Amino acid sequence: MFEGNSALGFCMVLAIILFTTKALGLIFRKLGLPQVLGYIIAGLLVGPAIFGLAGVSLIGFEGESYKSFLVMPKENALSIFSKIGVLFLMFSTGLETNLKELKSTGLVAVLIACAGVAVPLVLGLLISLPFGNIGLGTANIYRCIFIGTILTATSVAITVSVLKELGKVNTKLGTTIVSAAIIDDVIGIVLLSIVTGIAKSGSGENLTGFAWFKAQWWGTAIMIVAFFVVAILAGWGISKLFKWMDNRWPTTHRIPVFAIAVCLLYSWVAEEIFGVADITGAFLAGVVLSTDIRASRYTDQKVEVNTYTMFAPVFFANIGISSITFKGLNPNILLFAVCAVLVGLIGKIIGCGSVCKAFKYNWRESAIGGVGMMARGEVALIVTAAVTNTSLGEHALPSEFMIMTVLLILVSSILTPVFLKLLYGKNKGLPIGGAPETAVPQAEPNAEATAEPAGRTEDNSVNDSQ
Amino acid sequence: MFEGNSALGFCMVLAIILFTTKALGLIFRKLGLPQVLGYIIAGLLVGPAIFGLAGVSLIGFEGESYKSFLVMPKENALSIFSKIGVLFLMFSTGLETNLKELKSTGLVAVLIACAGVAVPLVLGLLISLPFGNIGLGTANIYRCIFIGTILTATSVAITVSVLKELGKVNTKLGTTIVSAAIIDDVIGIVLLSIVTGIAKSGSGENLTGFAWFKAQWWGTAIMIVAFFVVAILAGWGISKLFKWMDNRWPTTHRIPVFAIAVCLLYSWVAEEIFGVADITGAFLAGVVLSTDIRASRYTDQKVEVNTYTMFAPVFFANIGISSITFKGLNPNILLFAVCAVLVGLIGKIIGCGSVCKAFKYNWRESAIGGVGMMARGEVALIVTAAVTNTSLGEHALPSEFMIMTVLLILVSSILTPVFLKLLYGKNKGLPIGGAPETAVPQAEPNAEATAEPAGRTEDNSVNDSQ
Repeated sequence: MFEGNSALGFCMVLAIILFTTKALGLIFRKLGLPQVLGYIIAGLLVGPAIFGLAGVSLIGFEGESYKSFLVMPKENALSIFSKIGVLFLMFSTGLETNLKELKSTGLVAVLIACAGVAVPLVLGLLISLPFGNIGLGTANIYRCIFIGTILTATSVAITVSVLKELGKVNTKLGTTIVSAAIIDDVIGIVLLSIVTGIAKSGSGENLTGFAWFKAQWWGTAIMIVAFFVVAILAGWGISKLFKWMDNRWPTTHRIPVFAIAVCLLYSWVAEEIFGVADITGAFLAGVVLSTDIRASRYTDQKVEVNTYTMFAPVFFANIGISSITFKGLNPNILLFAVCAVLVGLIGKIIGCGSVCKAFKYNWRESAIGGVGMMARGEVALIVTAAVTNTSLGEHALPSEFMIMTVLLILVSSILTPVFLKLLYGKNKGLPIGGAPETAVPQAEPNAEATAEPAGRTEDNSVNDSQ
Repeated sequence: MFEGNSALGFCMVLAIILFTTKALGLIFRKLGLPQVLGYIIAGLLVGPAIFGLAGVSLIGFEGESYKSFLVMPKENALSIFSKIGVLFLMFSTGLETNLKELKSTGLVAVLIACAGVAVPLVLGLLISLPFGNIGLGTANIYRCIFIGTILTATSVAITVSVLKELGKVNTKLGTTIVSAAIIDDVIGIVLLSIVTGIAKSGSGENLTGFAWFKAQWWGTAIMIVAFFVVAILAGWGISKLFKWMDNRWPTTHRIPVFAIAVCLLYSWVAEEIFGVADITGAFLAGVVLSTDIRASRYTDQKVEVNTYTMFAPVFFANIGISSITFKGLNPNILLFAVCAVLVGLIGKIIGCGSVCKAFKYNWRESAIGGVGMMARGEVALIVTAAVTNTSLGEHALPSEFMIMTVLLILVSSILTPVFLKLLYGKNKGLPIGGAPETAVPQAEPNAEATAEPAGRTEDNSVNDSQ
């Protein structure tokens, strides 16, 4: 009826997305679930996924059988707003990754993170192999690796809010979980860069010069390393420049504006020049700029305003509008999704929990360590969006698998608080986590780390000012 | 070479625009000129206007003879970002229009504003009549009225910064100028709604029903009135809702998010349903929400972050990228631009100055009143963008006339401080403006009004935190 991709028509699309995501996000928060799930449901409601089956849709696409209030072409501006949303989310994550703090993190957190990535990755890969009937299996080994990669990303927002409620967030175990989740992000992003980079490399037929070089697996590997080297070297200069700007003109508009430009530039250079995922570029830009504490905090505040008032709601709603479809839903995919969710949850508990046990935490504390790392959130969606991207060609995961990620977030968000409370509740009054009897040998994360969680939680669900 | 309208390609376009606009904006500010002129020049430099003549362009359009680093189709996402930019600028202006303060404004400020709109409007219309050779003249009477409308918008940013420098901003004359400029915006936006509304109405051939009704001049008039009535009635309810939200959850994210959604909704409804300019809708949404002081300030802060870090730079840069072209520049348009600028400046001085004189200010003070209202800024660009919009069909002003507006801003920004300092400098030490001998009969604007100017200046050029 109305055009949804004209400048003003798109403003109306934005208005609808903002109203519905915020309303459903708040309802979900009331229910103790992550706001992002509310955002995705909002997308399902305003897009064609549900009402399109009944022949109508608030926001819909050209050439479909349903009638839409706002009609958009398949290629529309939502993709640009989504892209900026995901880049800003990763940029914020990078800005909040304080390198100095990470250096002082104990060995146990690093190992928990490594095991928490490795075990779900391998289990996810293995569970995908029998599912050749839905486009996975050995013939599509890259997609199986992608499934594993999706299962690696921890989100501690819910864990932190439960630990806060129980007064356990500042215990040794609590801070270790939070540190491990930060390192988890860094490992996850490096892993994603490698697997998507390798998947993009092809035979190099019909290519010449630089394009041919990038299409070789060794060329891809060289480019990935080269990107990290260039990004960090250039970042050294850029961070010096920012320190200088911040000393000369502290808390002025120019700082976040230049920072945002650097984030977008890094993202573009990563993908277009080096063939590395754009979100890696955005994340590294954040890490590079995080070295100046005052400038990075000020920038992060401004970027977050952009993110939560505009771009992130579109990113998550667009998952519901453009990626998820129930038309001819494949029961095999649903079966697989259930298996993958189980494997994803068990993988974290086994991986992270056994490292805790190896470091002389008792059984219950080890279980808390595993369950605390089990929750998934935004980053799982971001990784899924990256591996379903059509730029990966034939290796791209079909967007139907988004439903697996949504299910993983939903189930893990419901189970994590229940399990954590059960594990703590059984021994109320006993000192757990960092208690004197658990003589953990490595250095204690410094006190500052405990101040971070609220800022670090990607969906801000522990932040009251929503 | 690279695609500039893909999701990531557009991010690179944004990065280039943000870097260059901020850099040139800061240089222009150093030179005492409005930052927006720097933004437009940045657009001219990165777009095809200048370098395209030499065969290359950083950002360029498909099917042109020059080579571009980032190639976009003619219909591209810049128009969406520009649209949001202009809507947010008007929304902020609306949010800062405190109705209670306006009620207490003196009659003199209202009359200065009216004369400052009427005289340039009439002079602009008259000066356009002889220029039939560049598409104006009696055959294109709507365009002539548009020229007059462009000349009506005052921007007091520069005046306020000069008055601050001279310590005169809190005098009676200073506060009167600031109040008059606010009222000037309100009158200007109503005027714009009427003239663009009438221009859109046509013969109604081949139309039926509602479309036919809207195409009649009387139908248009009814729809304009209906829009204001509906917007204000609905606004009464919306403002109640916001007050309730603000009392229940003060300074939470949900307030600016819902406010932004209301702004976008009002804009769309204005244009698509009532045929009133979308910026009128955005402005009215701001006015409606401005009744709750705390919520509107909080919202304005968040909207301004979006505006200055992202959307406003794109709006102004896009004027340089998409609207201004020097290819086959018509000397007649340049001649006309010079005449229009002269008429625009003289119109304000005569109109506003003579009202001051009528209210028993002395000659010098009256000159200050006129010169203080002479400066133009963002709003002139916004109005020009509205009347060059292709939705006005054959009546739309060709985009070549943008150069007139840029010239008007440039010349008025240079002359206003010079003239003001000359007028004040001649009598240093003497009390001017609000001095006891100038017995102005009407109520004095209340003290709060004097705290407003810094927040009101649309280009923030008096705000140090750029």
